Amino acid sequence: MRRRFSYVTAEEAKEKIANALSFHVVASETIPIDDAFNRVLAENIVSPFNIPPHDISHFDGYALKAVETTDASVQNPVYFTVVDRLYPGQTPTREIRSGEVCYVTTGSFLPTGVDSIIAVEATKTVNNDQIEVRSKVSLHEHLIPKGSDVEKDQILFKKGHKLRAQDLTMCAALRIGNITVFKKPVAAFICVGDELTDDLDAVAEGTVVNSLRYAVSALIRGSGGEPIYLGIASDDVAAIKEKIDEGVSQADLVLLTGGSSKGTKDVTSEAIDAVGKPGVIVHGLKRKPGRVSGFAVVHGKPVVLLPGLCHSLVVGFYTFVLPLIQVLSGLSDAEKRWVLRAKITQQLSFRRFIPFEQVTFVHVTKTQRGYRADPFVGDSSSFSVLARANAFIINPPQKTTVKTGEEVEAHLLPGFFTLNDLF
Amino acid sequence: MRRRFSYVTAEEAKEKIANALSFHVVASETIPIDDAFNRVLAENIVSPFNIPPHDISHFDGYALKAVETTDASVQNPVYFTVVDRLYPGQTPTREIRSGEVCYVTTGSFLPTGVDSIIAVEATKTVNNDQIEVRSKVSLHEHLIPKGSDVEKDQILFKKGHKLRAQDLTMCAALRIGNITVFKKPVAAFICVGDELTDDLDAVAEGTVVNSLRYAVSALIRGSGGEPIYLGIASDDVAAIKEKIDEGVSQADLVLLTGGSSKGTKDVTSEAIDAVGKPGVIVHGLKRKPGRVSGFAVVHGKPVVLLPGLCHSLVVGFYTFVLPLIQVLSGLSDAEKRWVLRAKITQQLSFRRFIPFEQVTFVHVTKTQRGYRADPFVGDSSSFSVLARANAFIINPPQKTTVKTGEEVEAHLLPGFFTLNDLF
Repeated sequence: MRRRFSYVTAEEAKEKIANALSFHVVASETIPIDDAFNRVLAENIVSPFNIPPHDISHFDGYALKAVETTDASVQNPVYFTVVDRLYPGQTPTREIRSGEVCYVTTGSFLPTGVDSIIAVEATKTVNNDQIEVRSKVSLHEHLIPKGSDVEKDQILFKKGHKLRAQDLTMCAALRIGNITVFKKPVAAFICVGDELTDDLDAVAEGTVVNSLRYAVSALIRGSGGEPIYLGIASDDVAAIKEKIDEGVSQADLVLLTGGSSKGTKDVTSEAIDAVGKPGVIVHGLKRKPGRVSGFAVVHGKPVVLLPGLCHSLVVGFYTFVLPLIQVLSGLSDAEKRWVLRAKITQQLSFRRFIPFEQVTFVHVTKTQRGYRADPFVGDSSSFSVLARANAFIINPPQKTTVKTGEEVEAHLLPGFFTLNDLF
Repeated sequence: MRRRFSYVTAEEAKEKIANALSFHVVASETIPIDDAFNRVLAENIVSPFNIPPHDISHFDGYALKAVETTDASVQNPVYFTVVDRLYPGQTPTREIRSGEVCYVTTGSFLPTGVDSIIAVEATKTVNNDQIEVRSKVSLHEHLIPKGSDVEKDQILFKKGHKLRAQDLTMCAALRIGNITVFKKPVAAFICVGDELTDDLDAVAEGTVVNSLRYAVSALIRGSGGEPIYLGIASDDVAAIKEKIDEGVSQADLVLLTGGSSKGTKDVTSEAIDAVGKPGVIVHGLKRKPGRVSGFAVVHGKPVVLLPGLCHSLVVGFYTFVLPLIQVLSGLSDAEKRWVLRAKITQQLSFRRFIPFEQVTFVHVTKTQRGYRADPFVGDSSSFSVLARANAFIINPPQKTTVKTGEEVEAHLLPGFFTLNDLF
């Protein structure tokens, strides 16, 4: 018996998914920091020590206790004995007592017993080991306190943080050479359709090159996942089921492209239900293109049904797969979508026949005054529209016109744009 | 004899570099499209055929020549003979002649001799192979012309274009399975300093962990290059020269960190000049931090001198290395820098003692009304300032104050920010 479509909004779909799937992140692994660029932390990074580890001199001068200079003046010079000399990198061993100072250069670690520096030029050497001070020194003058850059036990980067270049240097400075990050979510995908071929030289009548697999693979990578292509399945329940079984056993999520509309051959949802419970929980999205997208859970793993036309596929991916990969990645801000406001350069009109959101692909570029969005209207299978676009707008169902110059929200999909377009 | 610094502006440096270095891109390689995501095209991609390859029906109906229905009306029905039936994927073989039509479904390729479709419901079947038409059909009605998506011989993606997800699908649809892309520029880097160690467990007095190497490596990756770390060189002309020789022979560009200031131990520029001509062509940048950056050319290859303090290093990288990697990458828009306008949240004051640009690290975040930039003031060696920042502003020499709320240009460095901060 064929399942009837039941269209839901993206919001409703999200709620159904949250109810059916106990989201979890993928396993973590410990790796050297040199491999950790762009990875997501699976632990908090806590500073094991202070940076700087000691108070440090910011000047060439003498380290002393400021209070001992309180009464110093030209009329009443105060004398100190130089009992030690410290250079950068040397660990202080001798404590400085009352009436004593320690010679230091810029960057020297300070010994205990001192709290301020007087610059060499503000003193007068009386003899080899005695100096004269004729003015009051302020507390902490010319001194960089220990821990003023990084404090011991401070949380520097939280679990869920994506590591940037400078973060890795911070870890190394703290002598943290290995860190625990989340594994990249593995997304297996299957392309369904009797007509499909992966042989670009195939000439047999009725064959269609499975060109979408390349976009799917790149979109998974762009979203932070690791793609595994499981190949083409014919429009046959058993064949599709076999590949889903394979995907569920190997990957963190499984995607199916094609075979998800209402045609007589659309057996993908039947195949999913045959794999396990609860099976298909969302099938039909109030968003066009992309309306035949769906979401299933089998053996606790998410399975996404993506349409077989390229525009629809991109919208389905954005709606269901991107958030999923980001949640599984352990990103603390996995909910964040990339949206920018842009002025549309051409009027858009939508029919109001159904309560669906309508997606229009646009090319967003930066101008002197914000962003502009050039819309492209074309069939859902138009490759050239996608090639010209770098974003899309989602028009709400009740709105039938977007006027020229009107501001719209352009949605960005990782893998689908380059930053040179936007900055 | 020690070379004197000669400070130049970033613009002047650019000109000197352009004069000394004949910029070239790195070699190209032919790879399968599945590996081509984010790579830069080294050839134009030209469409080898039309998409669609034939005129296509956009409806279930009959393909005919519109002119033959010119006089059709209820009073004057016109009759046609159905001589063929075509379904999607089938290649038409029979030409349709006057008085004939061909049954087609949505997506069918059209045979020669027709130019329009009449929908099934607008016709009446008279007998098995004859239909009655009672209204005029417009030219090209319900027809998708061949080449309307992609036209044969059209340039789709130009040399220098960075490949996105949808571009790969376009290539596959055109049955282009392998494409020629530029190799990623290989950047070898050497860290100079007697005090440095790569052993994070080293405890010897005076040793400093070479933490910068991790930032350098990630910044190279973020910029589109491939890093090779050649290790630490001591402050010794021969030792540095040996590593530069190694770098020049293996890589497209060589970076040196540290050993580039005016201290007695700064022998990096001497080592470079010992490697080959013309040697150091820029040493000293009117930008702080970063002022001890430099640029050299030896054996026709660029060698960049980067300062050894982390803030200075980031600025030097942005000024000299990022543009270099992007040019070598073959990117058509290699000149493009990523800059956004943000409102500073705290007043900045600069001393006017020298005609230098002053760099301040900031954290940029999106707000309801544009971007805000929170500035961080700290020593050039502060790791925590860098960890909190995701961009920087470059203040011109003559400007001594940036008022709270003033709009500034924030510069983004790949590898140094995440998009979640910005959208």
